[in-house]
Amino acid sequence: MTALPYRCALIVGAGTGISASVARQLAQSGVKVGVAARNVDKLAPLVEATGALAFAADASKPRDVDALFAQVDAQLGEPDIVIYNASLRASGPLAAVDPAAVEQSLAVTAFGAFLVVQQAAKRMEPRGHGAILLTGATAGVKGFAQSAAFAMGKFALRGLAQSAARELGPKGIHVAHFNIDGAVRSARRPDPADAADSTLDPDAIAQTYVSVLAQPRSAWSHEVDLRPWTERF
Amino acid sequence: MTALPYRCALIVGAGTGISASVARQLAQSGVKVGVAARNVDKLAPLVEATGALAFAADASKPRDVDALFAQVDAQLGEPDIVIYNASLRASGPLAAVDPAAVEQSLAVTAFGAFLVVQQAAKRMEPRGHGAILLTGATAGVKGFAQSAAFAMGKFALRGLAQSAARELGPKGIHVAHFNIDGAVRSARRPDPADAADSTLDPDAIAQTYVSVLAQPRSAWSHEVDLRPWTERF
Amino acid sequence: MTALPYRCALIVGAGTGISASVARQLAQSGVKVGVAARNVDKLAPLVEATGALAFAADASKPRDVDALFAQVDAQLGEPDIVIYNASLRASGPLAAVDPAAVEQSLAVTAFGAFLVVQQAAKRMEPRGHGAILLTGATAGVKGFAQSAAFAMGKFALRGLAQSAARELGPKGIHVAHFNIDGAVRSARRPDPADAADSTLDPDAIAQTYVSVLAQPRSAWSHEVDLRPWTERF
Amino acid sequence: MTALPYRCALIVGAGTGISASVARQLAQSGVKVGVAARNVDKLAPLVEATGALAFAADASKPRDVDALFAQVDAQLGEPDIVIYNASLRASGPLAAVDPAAVEQSLAVTAFGAFLVVQQAAKRMEPRGHGAILLTGATAGVKGFAQSAAFAMGKFALRGLAQSAARELGPKGIHVAHFNIDGAVRSARRPDPADAADSTLDPDAIAQTYVSVLAQPRSAWSHEVDLRPWTERF
Repeated sequence: MTALPYRCALIVGAGTGISASVARQLAQSGVKVGVAARNVDKLAPLVEATGALAFAADASKPRDVDALFAQVDAQLGEPDIVIYNASLRASGPLAAVDPAAVEQSLAVTAFGAFLVVQQAAKRMEPRGHGAILLTGATAGVKGFAQSAAFAMGKFALRGLAQSAARELGPKGIHVAHFNIDGAVRSARRPDPADAADSTLDPDAIAQTYVSVLAQPRSAWSHEVDLRPWTERF
Repeated sequence: MTALPYRCALIVGAGTGISASVARQLAQSGVKVGVAARNVDKLAPLVEATGALAFAADASKPRDVDALFAQVDAQLGEPDIVIYNASLRASGPLAAVDPAAVEQSLAVTAFGAFLVVQQAAKRMEPRGHGAILLTGATAGVKGFAQSAAFAMGKFALRGLAQSAARELGPKGIHVAHFNIDGAVRSARRPDPADAADSTLDPDAIAQTYVSVLAQPRSAWSHEVDLRPWTERF
Repeated sequence: MTALPYRCALIVGAGTGISASVARQLAQSGVKVGVAARNVDKLAPLVEATGALAFAADASKPRDVDALFAQVDAQLGEPDIVIYNASLRASGPLAAVDPAAVEQSLAVTAFGAFLVVQQAAKRMEPRGHGAILLTGATAGVKGFAQSAAFAMGKFALRGLAQSAARELGPKGIHVAHFNIDGAVRSARRPDPADAADSTLDPDAIAQTYVSVLAQPRSAWSHEVDLRPWTERF
Repeated sequence: MTALPYRCALIVGAGTGISASVARQLAQSGVKVGVAARNVDKLAPLVEATGALAFAADASKPRDVDALFAQVDAQLGEPDIVIYNASLRASGPLAAVDPAAVEQSLAVTAFGAFLVVQQAAKRMEPRGHGAILLTGATAGVKGFAQSAAFAMGKFALRGLAQSAARELGPKGIHVAHFNIDGAVRSARRPDPADAADSTLDPDAIAQTYVSVLAQPRSAWSHEVDLRPWTERF
């Protein structure tokens, strides 16, 4: 258990995986946790395991995000940790991918992150204290073929992270972007039998999220890559 | 005058500045030129100077972009050069900037680029030939404080450029992204009197666009930075 | 105190500052520590404070580095953590800087790192286990005016780090590069009175080194930036 | 033929390949050309084809580089274009590569470049005019396994390029770094029969070098990548 200078976290785009592991480790460090997703039913196991409060919100809708933070303020307290994990892919050849799917991918992966960061900034700036963690992907540093929408969304997220860090850092708010550079392990996607630890264990990812939250402000990380030992990069 | 392996160009987001200079230099190289903007009135001087055809379109609207390319096909021929210059800023503190302005900025700067690249790909892939040039900015490689929306849009554009290059390059289509790393000279924004050439001359920018279009396919550039000799970077 | 999967560390280029803090924190985690420098007298306070063993070596000399590791093997055990902190600047205008100083700067900052990484690899590969940490600087990601030698050395260090990570990672050896992006606090260079935590506290840096050493192999960081909350970047 | 604002070029590390193509195209643009290599015999065909003057020099030796520039000054005039093409690989597993080979690789690939850039700066600064082109490689942006020495050398070259650009740019000297991101075509290494233009044609590379030299100072490129249309990146 790591002592953290924060007391209340909101994780947006939560479900199983990274969000659940981060929620659990934050709860173990004594942080109150709220989790938000479009579909709260998905959050049931997480809520059960961690005692987190669950909130329904579509992060790509300004009104939903406003309402989400108002609820969190009232029921949990103003969050001093805000984590954005939501994203949506739209793969396929450039000539064939549906523009509406690309628009939706950008809305969830990038615009929703802006909305959440904005609400976080509004709460953290007056206190001069807080942390904003954004979950990126390989696609945010390298645009792959047949994945333009995801590249656009995750690049945009990294641009947002940099802009927010440069604006909010000197105001006491720690903004960090994580490049999750590999496949995340899950029940549906376990490690291959012959390649132990070749996928990212969500608990291992969460361990580094918590380490970054524990950094003193004289030595903050902004850009953190995480990949399995066997990953090509 | 540089000989180019192309015959018909469409420049989207055209106005004065880079677009006008590129249009002029392409016309001088014997390339037919179409220019598109939301407001065609802005294009009058460019049309007069270059003989380009002007088209009205809002690049952030799928239907408009479909219709634009159909018109260009009919009136000018299928473009084998497509250039995207449109962008829209929404500056201000994170906590204060209007979400609707951010959404619109992303739509024009990034989603519109996707729509245009998609139409370009549809036409160029069957021929195994073409060039797509995307006009980026410093904001696409470095996210500045109080400029989250522009950072998101220009980062997304660079992600699109990389994804498109990796998908379309091996199909014979040259995709290049230009980081315009400084202020572009204009009537409203001339060089300071004591700092000659400290802003980017649009004709100088266009010269490099044309050089990149002239590259043989055995040695293509994908990422090109352009900045004044005096610029800090 | 963090539990680490390592038992014996060698820190090269040790003195006060980062090395002393890392040595102390590793010792607190139960790791045996050896420290090496050209001038062992500089190490006396560190040795006194941590119980580390001190070794004299010029890291830029192949014979010295060979002998250093042989001594460490004998007196401390084969190190499964190896940290390279040595560097040497040679500042001044390009036209004026002394080529001999540039050569020496490259030798200490980059070639010495290669020699140390090579000896580390020889010991860690047979065991399929180990960690190599390389201390970089802003100069390794951005080459500043009047600082060509340091830019060359720290860029080279980053190239070494990437090459080593790609070769040794899949063999079970964690290679990480730290971009220390700011001034490190010291007795001679304290925080300005009006800017608390505007320099990097060596203890805060060491905290992240230890966190990275504690990462499970399914989620390793390779490139870690650290900067004060107030730092421009 | 492109009109260039320069009159005298020195190409160091010249042989066949890129240097020969650049020498030929510069000569065609009316620029006097000197070429330097350790072994001047290798330069005979180039001298014959272009009328360039050949000079013998080991670019990694300060005395040789001093003498080289003195000779060029006397026989050709002070060069206002200086191009560094020399490099030396030392491949092999980290644990096995010979340290002496690594040292030599760094000396030729990076330290020699510093020596040449320094002599160039001495001549160009007083005139406030000149261009320095540095030939990099994929290894300068990505450190590959089993190629630490080359990664170190080419990363260092890129660090040098950035430092020189930031120092010399505002003095009127255009410094550009080229990432040659693929195999260069040669008699020994022709295109595969079934993959036309899948290697970089030296003439195509030279075309872009000349384009960069022709850039007006209001819009200079510093970092230029060049790769075949089929190259993965």
